[in-house]
Order: sequence, then C-alpha cells, then structure tokens
Amino acid sequence: MNYKMIGRILSMIAIAELIFMIPALLISVAHNNQEAVHAFAVTMISVGIIAALVYLLCRKCESRFYAREGLVSVGIGWIVLSLIGCLPFYISGEIPTFIDAFFESVSGFTTTGSSILSDVESMSEGMLYWRSFTHWLGGMGVLVFILAVIPASGKGSGFTMHLLRAESPGPDVGKLVPRMRKTAVILYALYIVLTVLDFIFLMFGGMNVLEAVCTAFGTAGTGGFGVRNDSIASYSPYIQNVCTVFMILFGVNFTCYYFLLLGKIKDVFKDEELRLYLGVIFSSVVLITFNVSHMYGSIGEALRHSAFQVATVITTTGFATTDFDLWPTFSKMIMVMLMFVGASAGSTGGGFKCGRLLLLFKTLRRNLEKTLNPQKVSVVRNNGRPVNEKVLNGLYTYLIAYVFIMIASVLVVSLDGESMTTTVTAVIACFNNIGPGLDGVGPTCNYGDLSVLSKATLMFDMLAGRLEIFPILLLITRKTWKKIV
Amino acid sequence: MNYKMIGRILSMIAIAELIFMIPALLISVAHNNQEAVHAFAVTMISVGIIAALVYLLCRKCESRFYAREGLVSVGIGWIVLSLIGCLPFYISGEIPTFIDAFFESVSGFTTTGSSILSDVESMSEGMLYWRSFTHWLGGMGVLVFILAVIPASGKGSGFTMHLLRAESPGPDVGKLVPRMRKTAVILYALYIVLTVLDFIFLMFGGMNVLEAVCTAFGTAGTGGFGVRNDSIASYSPYIQNVCTVFMILFGVNFTCYYFLLLGKIKDVFKDEELRLYLGVIFSSVVLITFNVSHMYGSIGEALRHSAFQVATVITTTGFATTDFDLWPTFSKMIMVMLMFVGASAGSTGGGFKCGRLLLLFKTLRRNLEKTLNPQKVSVVRNNGRPVNEKVLNGLYTYLIAYVFIMIASVLVVSLDGESMTTTVTAVIACFNNIGPGLDGVGPTCNYGDLSVLSKATLMFDMLAGRLEIFPILLLITRKTWKKIV
Repeated sequence: MNYKMIGRILSMIAIAELIFMIPALLISVAHNNQEAVHAFAVTMISVGIIAALVYLLCRKCESRFYAREGLVSVGIGWIVLSLIGCLPFYISGEIPTFIDAFFESVSGFTTTGSSILSDVESMSEGMLYWRSFTHWLGGMGVLVFILAVIPASGKGSGFTMHLLRAESPGPDVGKLVPRMRKTAVILYALYIVLTVLDFIFLMFGGMNVLEAVCTAFGTAGTGGFGVRNDSIASYSPYIQNVCTVFMILFGVNFTCYYFLLLGKIKDVFKDEELRLYLGVIFSSVVLITFNVSHMYGSIGEALRHSAFQVATVITTTGFATTDFDLWPTFSKMIMVMLMFVGASAGSTGGGFKCGRLLLLFKTLRRNLEKTLNPQKVSVVRNNGRPVNEKVLNGLYTYLIAYVFIMIASVLVVSLDGESMTTTVTAVIACFNNIGPGLDGVGPTCNYGDLSVLSKATLMFDMLAGRLEIFPILLLITRKTWKKIV
Repeated sequence: MNYKMIGRILSMIAIAELIFMIPALLISVAHNNQEAVHAFAVTMISVGIIAALVYLLCRKCESRFYAREGLVSVGIGWIVLSLIGCLPFYISGEIPTFIDAFFESVSGFTTTGSSILSDVESMSEGMLYWRSFTHWLGGMGVLVFILAVIPASGKGSGFTMHLLRAESPGPDVGKLVPRMRKTAVILYALYIVLTVLDFIFLMFGGMNVLEAVCTAFGTAGTGGFGVRNDSIASYSPYIQNVCTVFMILFGVNFTCYYFLLLGKIKDVFKDEELRLYLGVIFSSVVLITFNVSHMYGSIGEALRHSAFQVATVITTTGFATTDFDLWPTFSKMIMVMLMFVGASAGSTGGGFKCGRLLLLFKTLRRNLEKTLNPQKVSVVRNNGRPVNEKVLNGLYTYLIAYVFIMIASVLVVSLDGESMTTTVTAVIACFNNIGPGLDGVGPTCNYGDLSVLSKATLMFDMLAGRLEIFPILLLITRKTWKKIV
C-alpha cells in the first residue's frame, strides 16, 4: 500500500476543504456572530497546520498507485472530510454533542440530508451556509474538484482514473473525454452553471440571498438540508416548482448535458437511462396525483405536491412540501420504491440508480431467454453497445453487497426499539442518501432521538451509499490491509 | 413445444391427485358428512373423466423433451394441481367463494399456509384432512412422486431430469444417485419415515389421530395449516417442542439424511449449508430469548416460544404458539430476516434458502478480493468443491428476479390501502411460503379481507416461491411460446 501517496491526497482534501470554509467565516464575521467566527478560525488554523505537516511528510512518494490505493484514499478521504466539516458545528456549540455534529456533517457531504436538528432556524448564518455547502461539495465530489484544479502532475492516468472511478456514481465511470482532468473540469463547469441558474430563479421568487444560496446548494447536490424548519413547505408554489424542476435536472446524467452542448441532441433523447428516469418520474407523478387528489384543494395542488415529492425522493434530495407519511399506502409504497430507484448514474443523486436497474432488468431478460435456449449466445446491450460481462459481474456484486448491508443495518438499528417502519425507512433513507424516511424519521421528524450505535450505523450507510459501497466496504475488509503476494 | 407430452404429464398429475383424495372421501363417509362426500365424489368423477380423455389424446407423443418443456410442465402442472385441489372446498360450500377456495388450495400445495379462513374449527373432518394433505404432497412435490412410482419408461434421463430439476428447491439439483427414479424413491421414503415419526411423537402427546395426521402433514411439508383457530398455541409444551424439533428437521437438506444412512456422518457435519442453517437458528433463538424474556413467566417459557417461532419462520412453516407481532422491534426484525433466509436447499422449506445466501456471501467476498487484486483468479467453493460459474450466474438471475417480483407484488397489494407493514409482510410471507406476516396478516389474523387482485398476486407469489420463480415466470414470458429458431 502506497501510504505516502494516500497521506498526500488526504492533506490535499483537508486543505481544499479549509479554503472552502472561508466564505462561511466571512459570513459569520459579517453577521458578527462571535462563536461561529471562533469555531471556523480554530478549525482552519489547527487543521491547516496538521494538513501542511502531513503534506510535507508525504511529499516524496512513489508513483505506484493501483485500484486498491484509489479506493482506500476515497474511503478514508471522505471520513476525514466529514470529520473536519463537523468541527465548526461542535466547537461553536451550535450542535452540542460530537456524534450529532459528525452525523450532520456526514449527512451533508454524502448529500443525504438526514438531520438531527429539530430547530434549524436557530442556527447562525455562517453555519447554515456551511451546512448547505457540504451538500454542494459532496454532490460532485471533492476529489473530482481537486483533479479539476491541480495541474496535471505527470503521475500518469492511473492515478486520476482510479480516484475518479471510485468517487463517481454509476455502474460505469463517466469518462467524457480521453483526458481525466478535462472531464473533471467539464463536470464542475456544468455543475456551477446549473447551480447559478437555480440561484437566479430562486431569487426571482423572492428568497433572500442566503436562502437562495443554501437552497440552490441543497438542490444541486441533491442533498436536502433546508433553512426553515418546514423545509420548502412555507415557500410560494413558484419556488416549489423551481425546486422540482431543478431537482429533476440535477438527477440527470451530466454526460447528457455535455452531449447537449456538443449538439448531439438525438443521442441525448435516445439515452435509455434518461428515458427510464423521466418515464418513472412521469408515471409516479400521475399515479400519486390521482391517488392523493382528494387530500388537496384542487388537482393542480395535488399535482404540485406529488411532482415535488416524487422529484425529491427519486433524486434522493429530501426536501419536503407536504407530509407524505399521511398519504394512502399505495402512494407511500411508490415513494418507498422510488427511494430505492434513485437518480441517474453520473448525476449528483444517490440511490441504486436507474442505469443499474435497467442493466439488471436486461440481464434478467437475457438470462431467462438463456434458460429457454441454452445454446443461444446473447449479450446485454446498453444504448445499442454491448456491455462487458465484467461490468455485469460488478453489478451483481453491487446488488449482493447492497442487500447484505441493508439487512445488517436494519438489524442494528432495530435494537433502538423504534417502530418497524421507522427502523426500515431510516436505513433506506440514509443508505440511499435521501434524508427523511417515514414514521419516526418522516418529513416532519428528525434523527436526533436515535442511539449512538444507530447513528454510527447510519453514518456508515450514508458513506457507503454515496461512494457506491466498495470504497467503504473495503476499509473494513481484512485483505485490503494485507500485502499483495 | 411438445404439447402432447405436456398434456400427458398434466393428466398424470390430475390422476395422482384424485387417488390421493380417496382417504379424504373415506373420512367424510366415516363422519357421515354428506356435503363433503358429495364434493369429493363430484370432483373425482368429473376431473377423472377429463384427465382420462386428455391422457388418451396425448398418449402418442414425440419423446423430445427439453428444459423448456420441463419448466412449462411444472408451472402449468402446479396450477392444475391447485385448481383441482380447490374444487372440494368450493363445491361443498365450506369455502363459499371460488377465489378464496383457490387461494387456500394454492397456499396448501405451495406449503405456504396463508389462510383466508377465520374459523378453521368449523370445517368438516374430510376437508381438514385434505387441506393439510395438500401441504404434504406439495412439500416434496407431486412430480417427484410420479417419477418415484411410474416405471422407467425408457424416455431417457432428459425427461425426468428436467422435471425433477424444475420442481426441486435449491440452487443446484439434488441428484443423490445417478438414476433419477431412484433419487425420487429415496427422497419419498425418507419423507414418509420422518412424517410417521412425527405422527407417533404427536400421538404420545395426547392428540387424536386426525389432529396428529394433519399436524404431521403441516410440519412435514413445512406448510403451517393447523386444525385449531389458535394454531398450536393451546397444545401442551411437549407437543410444541415436538413441532419445533420436527420443523427444524424438515428444513434440513434431505441429502444429509441419505448420507447419514450411508454412514457418512463426517460429511454431514461438515456440510456448510447445514452449519449455517443450524447456526442461524441457534443465534436467533438466543437473541430473541433474551430480548423477550420479560414478556413471559420464565426464561424457559421464553426459550420455548422463541425456539418455536424461529423454527416456524426459518423453515417457512407458519405455525404459531404466540403472537410475535407483540414482540419488541429487534425480535420482530430478526423474524422478518428469517422470513427471507428460509430453510435449506433440497428440503421441503421455502424462502431464499441458506445455500443460496452462503453462495452469495462467498461470491461477494471473492469479487471484493478481485477488486483489490484484479489479476488473481479465484473460484467460489462449496463444501470444498469449486462452483461452476454457470451456477453462480443462475444465482444472480434468481436474486434479480426475486427482487423485481417482490417490488411489483408489493405495489399491487398496496392498492388495498392496508398498512405498510401488512402490505410488505403479506408479500414476504406468501412469496417465501411462510404463511402469516405481521399486523393485518399477523399470526392471529388471516388473508380473507384482501381484494381479489391482491389474492391473485399473492397466489402468483406463492407459486413462484415454491417453484423457485423460473417455471412460473417463464409462463408469462412471450418468448416461451415462440418457436425456437
């Protein structure tokens, strides 16, 4: 294991994070909030010194860097990211216990949006900004950002490739252009443009700057932290609809936007994952609208709420405008299904991902046909191109790991003695990076009452969900730490 | 498709079933229950004539018989079996609506044990016998029985192999000896001996003959239909313990018993699936006993109830001695997990099966290691022997199909508007052939109130669960009915 290289990457993550803390510090200064200023300053100075030391110690290192190092760097990197990110909350006392501050930070960076806070509105402006910013950074990925800004160091494509592959969501890595660094730049450029657009539309709806920035961050990262206790419910229908549209946009594979810019419009509309994603959204909205229409004043209002709630769950954002825990079972069940479905590969959304589901379905069909006709050789195709059996094998492994982690987590959380629905949906919501579940962790409740053990399990789930399981699962696999013979 | 051969197999299934109805008819005559006598007689005469005609029509047929024909025969065969089996219930008026009678029959043959009856005790003796007998026949399989009794017809091993493979549970067909017919004979012989032993032990506990027969049938097939409204709860602790032990015994792979008889005791105790199966039972019983000990008078009573409930759920039997819906969430969650785990491959139990879980876990470990070290070639081993990648591929397909069917079924059943727990556990309990779920379909409730659509979905699930998905799934696949080019 190339420990020095890993140390170098970790220190770079820390330094990037500290630079991103500057706006939060400035906001706290502007609002004259002394505790917050103190907390940010202490974090930046102490972590800055440690990170600089680690960087210097690990400056000279071998360039050998394999998939294993890439996965481990990303796994540990995100834990370090969350640990540093929680310090301001804890030091300022705005979140009094460490485990809760850590939980909130993990929930932020993994774009989950599960909160332990019952009163968001009492937080200081700087902290609110920082809390929402974690979503934005976590959405596209901190290592993708570092790859985009640091000059190509000549370490070879292995280095960047392994990191990008481990941090980006989806069954296959979204390599837009042959050079990794350019891919990272394009991704972040698109991300920034879309976020700014969202911000502008929200400002038109009468939000103040901080609200609009935080909401745009929460939407862009498909995170879901809001700045009001009732999430988005008390904003105007216009703002709710803006959120709906942008949530759906951020759940699209960013490759589609790149192709749009290149003028390959046909390719985009033929994309099978995009079709499935939009098809699922459309049918869910129609079914739920009819199912809940009696609960709202008009069919239009039912449509607005169902579209918002469908968008928030399938993109795994986690905002809310209404308490869907009160909906009929059929609608609630669709929502639970959507929690698993998730957004598109290569988007900022979490969950199992439409692309994976599509591949699973195609594999099932292929294998059933093979049962009927064992002699026939047939390949699974995605957008017309044959899919490598290695990718399919990775997919099966993902599904198996997904199921095992889900089961183990539910068992641990059930020790708390909360209701079955609370227990199961807490795990579903955290593992798929959504945020709120149902019942005791429903849209109007929070995760504060759970035990430390449950919180730790859910943090593991959030990280495993955001990093697509393997980087986190490998950290607790004995063989990872053994010398390869 | 060799339709004539399929017709022949179906008529043989029907005739075998009618012969098995004779004891039920005689019991009804002995108890002088005219409606029941009439119902059995009408069924036997009318179905007998039709079956004889079909047999004559399909007598002369080609001997070509592939996997496709085998799967289709088993799929349709079990639907025919259940249709004929429900006629006595319906004609006698003891179950007044056809869909309910059909549901009860499917639930019986698939050894599920989900009942639509709220008052079992009002049924006539002949019907109670027949209802429990469906479990016994369904447990080991009607085609395995036919293979065991008909003389080898020289049709080649393809014929019998495909049928046995399609009807027997487990990831790999349990071929004990090279000749299929002998395997079928051995399986049924072991099955009969164990059932008789169970019957004798129950008689010692003071049950009357009919009760002991029915309970032994329900235990042997891991079905779960009882003869009392409170299932096994009002029987003595001795009888409850006998049931616990025999349920666990019937959940063991029958190959183990065969090896025991051959004196290969070491092989049996080294069997990885058996170890997992017993290990899961042991740890679940210990955990639940501690978790529920405050609810019962003594630790011994808690142990008895938890052992019984664990055995009933992991073997997918579905008897009950206590309402585990009242247990703490942790214990309930263990029970829900056990519902999925299921018994061993090659037993009469249902569920996902310990053997499959073991293989999934090993595959996960192998594939994770491959992520770390892509060059290394490693195979998955079962009891020391390498597992063919084809078997693993079949396993992945099974898992995918399992998940998709589960999701689709839950969505349909949720239209009824029952609670989330009721909806989800109804599907889990039927698909895994257990019987009772939680809440509205818990141990003290029944399936009578569900809509026809839900009942039809659950019947599909029960059949798919018992026949391990493919024979039933292929019936609704378009390509099955197309000519193979």
